[in-house]
Amino acid sequence: MGMKLHGHMSSPFVKSVAMTIYEKNEDFELLFGGLSELKSEEFIATKNPFGLMPAFEDGDLILFESRAIAKYVDAKFEGQGTCLMGSNIRDQALVNVWIEVEGHTFFSAIWPICREFYSKKVPDVTVIETHIVKVKKVFDIYEAQLSKHKYLAGEFFSFADLFHIPTLHFLQCLSEDVFRRILDGQSRLQSWHQDITSRPSWKKIIARPEASDWSYIEKV
Amino acid sequence: MGMKLHGHMSSPFVKSVAMTIYEKNEDFELLFGGLSELKSEEFIATKNPFGLMPAFEDGDLILFESRAIAKYVDAKFEGQGTCLMGSNIRDQALVNVWIEVEGHTFFSAIWPICREFYSKKVPDVTVIETHIVKVKKVFDIYEAQLSKHKYLAGEFFSFADLFHIPTLHFLQCLSEDVFRRILDGQSRLQSWHQDITSRPSWKKIIARPEASDWSYIEKV
Repeated sequence: MGMKLHGHMSSPFVKSVAMTIYEKNEDFELLFGGLSELKSEEFIATKNPFGLMPAFEDGDLILFESRAIAKYVDAKFEGQGTCLMGSNIRDQALVNVWIEVEGHTFFSAIWPICREFYSKKVPDVTVIETHIVKVKKVFDIYEAQLSKHKYLAGEFFSFADLFHIPTLHFLQCLSEDVFRRILDGQSRLQSWHQDITSRPSWKKIIARPEASDWSYIEKV
Repeated sequence: MGMKLHGHMSSPFVKSVAMTIYEKNEDFELLFGGLSELKSEEFIATKNPFGLMPAFEDGDLILFESRAIAKYVDAKFEGQGTCLMGSNIRDQALVNVWIEVEGHTFFSAIWPICREFYSKKVPDVTVIETHIVKVKKVFDIYEAQLSKHKYLAGEFFSFADLFHIPTLHFLQCLSEDVFRRILDGQSRLQSWHQDITSRPSWKKIIARPEASDWSYIEKV
């Protein structure tokens, strides 16, 4: 019995888990019954109490929260495909540092920009401009880090890099202009982004037509 | 050479790391040169590029981000004191699920309330009331989870529980009234909170007078 991923491939969080599974040279069954399914009593009682995608099943183990699911998949298939959490306690610590930066500092700077574009008819320019400044401040630190190391946590590709990809892709689809502005002048960041988005696991995801069909992203 | 923790014990994030170290029956050297040190070129270049506490040193390994530091300490002292990440891949996955809930859903609901109280002369009642509703929604889900399990990730105390303690303590110190309101009517949550804050590791922290001296919390 294989792994089941509940959600739509347009979701950046579903993409993170899917990319992880592909990096481990595994596959999954994608199940999605529409946004109403996510809010159904059954889904909330048995899959994700927050009524959000993704949820994940591996036998009788049911998980939610994309980063937690992704880490489980990496641990389950230890020694297979790409090692995404670092191969020793020291590397794992550095991967965790930059996962925290991604999940808190980067995400809380970039997500409000995405939200303006996808959930409002007229995006609030002030919100967008304020958060572009925030993202650029974070990216100044990334640029410095990438001048010392090939990837964020060191010389190896890891979750510290991977978790950024779907969010940056979402923003790029919503506004190529804003996307270019946040990467502007950051040459190492641009090379890093080029590198990590060239991975076969990511190409396989964006080749799917539903990967950029935003009709299933909740307008919150 | 022992572990060095850079920061002031009033910070909820410094407390998380300190509590973790005590749970592992270890100790640390606490170093703090004031808020200006955090913004110094030296600190930013060598300890934490974001200029925030805590930063952490273990020999030549330098880390920042409290949850990442805490996980490193747990992994370094595997088999000693409390196992905080779960003892098998399945438990670890569940711990990670609830760490994500804490770090994203819980924290982003409760932190704006704390911020109103500690950084404004006149807290904005609308912000506080809006976020009380958000915290209570999250806590409805916690109450349901705690009706099935003794702790958030299962029958064992873990980071999924621990990371909540310093933030709830901060709010309780800032406003006993709001603290009571968010726990009101949630009997299992109240018992859980009573239980996890009775741990010797936590009592050792709050016994320090500087643990509730908020003058070193940045007003952002």
